[in-house]
Amino acid sequence: MDISRRKPTPHDVQIDILFCGVCHSDLHTARSEWGPSMYPCVPGHEIVGTVISVGEHVKKFKVGDVVGVGCMVDSCRECQYCQEDLEQFCEPGMTGTYNAPDKHIPGSPTFGGYSESIVVHENYVLRIPENMDLAAAAPLLCAGITTYSPLRHWNVGPGKKVGVVGIGGLGHMGIKIAKAMGAEVVAFTTSESKFAEARRLGADEVVLSKDEAQMAAYKGKLHFILDAVSAQHDINAYLNLLRVDGSLALVGAPEHPLPVAAFSLIMGRKSFAGSMIGGIAETQEMLDFCGEHNIVADIEMIDIQQINEAYERLLSGDVKYRFVIDMNSLKQS
Amino acid sequence: MDISRRKPTPHDVQIDILFCGVCHSDLHTARSEWGPSMYPCVPGHEIVGTVISVGEHVKKFKVGDVVGVGCMVDSCRECQYCQEDLEQFCEPGMTGTYNAPDKHIPGSPTFGGYSESIVVHENYVLRIPENMDLAAAAPLLCAGITTYSPLRHWNVGPGKKVGVVGIGGLGHMGIKIAKAMGAEVVAFTTSESKFAEARRLGADEVVLSKDEAQMAAYKGKLHFILDAVSAQHDINAYLNLLRVDGSLALVGAPEHPLPVAAFSLIMGRKSFAGSMIGGIAETQEMLDFCGEHNIVADIEMIDIQQINEAYERLLSGDVKYRFVIDMNSLKQS
Repeated sequence: MDISRRKPTPHDVQIDILFCGVCHSDLHTARSEWGPSMYPCVPGHEIVGTVISVGEHVKKFKVGDVVGVGCMVDSCRECQYCQEDLEQFCEPGMTGTYNAPDKHIPGSPTFGGYSESIVVHENYVLRIPENMDLAAAAPLLCAGITTYSPLRHWNVGPGKKVGVVGIGGLGHMGIKIAKAMGAEVVAFTTSESKFAEARRLGADEVVLSKDEAQMAAYKGKLHFILDAVSAQHDINAYLNLLRVDGSLALVGAPEHPLPVAAFSLIMGRKSFAGSMIGGIAETQEMLDFCGEHNIVADIEMIDIQQINEAYERLLSGDVKYRFVIDMNSLKQS
Repeated sequence: MDISRRKPTPHDVQIDILFCGVCHSDLHTARSEWGPSMYPCVPGHEIVGTVISVGEHVKKFKVGDVVGVGCMVDSCRECQYCQEDLEQFCEPGMTGTYNAPDKHIPGSPTFGGYSESIVVHENYVLRIPENMDLAAAAPLLCAGITTYSPLRHWNVGPGKKVGVVGIGGLGHMGIKIAKAMGAEVVAFTTSESKFAEARRLGADEVVLSKDEAQMAAYKGKLHFILDAVSAQHDINAYLNLLRVDGSLALVGAPEHPLPVAAFSLIMGRKSFAGSMIGGIAETQEMLDFCGEHNIVADIEMIDIQQINEAYERLLSGDVKYRFVIDMNSLKQS
């Protein structure tokens, strides 16, 4: 189908989309699983492309630059959180890259990256480091910042022992980034078949989470746990592995509330926390960090014509570790 | 009944007990509600008394000093947490003031403050500020430090808006201490009848927690919440009131796990945390702080002969806000 993009305003950047990652949120939204979506719905918030035009006041980018767009394309820019570079928590609400009311086209939702081009205010556009594989860089815009931000916020680095729970789209980035930050990384998985993969991604140790003896060996040992599991799971079993003053940050979003025992938190002054993407400045910091450390996502490239099949494979966990759409395929259809 | 206290060793302080607060833990332990207790059981860990003898190497106290003993009488003194003044999280485990294996008397449990005297290593004895009412100071040793420690840990002070949930033995101390720290205090209660009391204790604002409109008015407004409720309650309703990066610390211990929705934490990078008493140095700091700010507990004095009646009234919430036993009554029985 054809969608309209606004004519670039003086601060807008017009981007020809090269690649777009496939996030689990795309599937939830396309299928109205997080409440009714606005249709037509064009998902996609892991966008990499080339600048093809810029508004007259744009200072940060020029035609030909390789850029990225993540989960948000705007926010109020005035509230305390926007002022503190935490636009993801904008008080009136950030403008999601898709399925949000479009401020510029009344009555229309925003349309995401499963498309040929996009127009975004320069403040919400990111610079992609030059050395990156562009297709594999796309998932950094959501999966990368979703894991980088909590790892940074909870001071992961040398001397810290960090757990990463779940080795999927988010978790595989979490392992790579935590390792690059200098931490000792312990990966937790429900499947012994993922042990070699976890080590290849950078984990120093791997634990089979359903084996109580393996879990018990880590009791009170971890400074921080990044929990990237979206399925229901026992949070208390992981809180138990934290040291005194340790935090577990959830970045997946299990559908049902998770039961937390008071003593899991009280004994050791522990915290069960959550984290959601990151601000624009931090997203740029993450991209630069990944550029320096040669980190990109592990991807499987698909054409847009394979998207429904990809969604089904995503649901069964059959992807290592992120699908990325070659948007050139859209022009050929 | 008669119990034996050890002969003071060179580092021990022998204390004649004047007053002992009645904590809900006493009741749980006396009735084996937290697993089987060791009988005979002598509860009491909010102890105030006078030093009647000191071991030859004791440097911190002398005969005649007015001192306190809280929830622990010993710990390993060697582990990382003991070294960091977090003896409450001692790795091999702290020695509870009652119902813990007594290191000095093999086979015997430790006996608490519902007794005439106690012998404690000087490192686990606290100094009571001179200006304090001694009976009303007793509850500071548990209820005081249980609320002071998280308020301090999460940086409550001027410019911070702090919620205190539940106005009972713990909560009434939380309100007084948070106010003295300079915070703006919002008290939450299930009963409109407690509004005037909450204000008298120092709350700037009071919210009826079962009134959805009153709760909604505080959405995203609080920097920190001290949750002193031991009954089951909806944690998500309170997480919702936190600002971005806010924490809710549980100091009560509801019996069943509390369901926590992922989005309650993810939206705003919030933390659901717990806290348990405080270390010895921090307990002294709390006593000194309360001395400077003229803070003690609101108490109702009882004789030891009334303890069973007091337990029943505790269960029905019929106390403002802490029972304290005049231990002189024991000598008269």
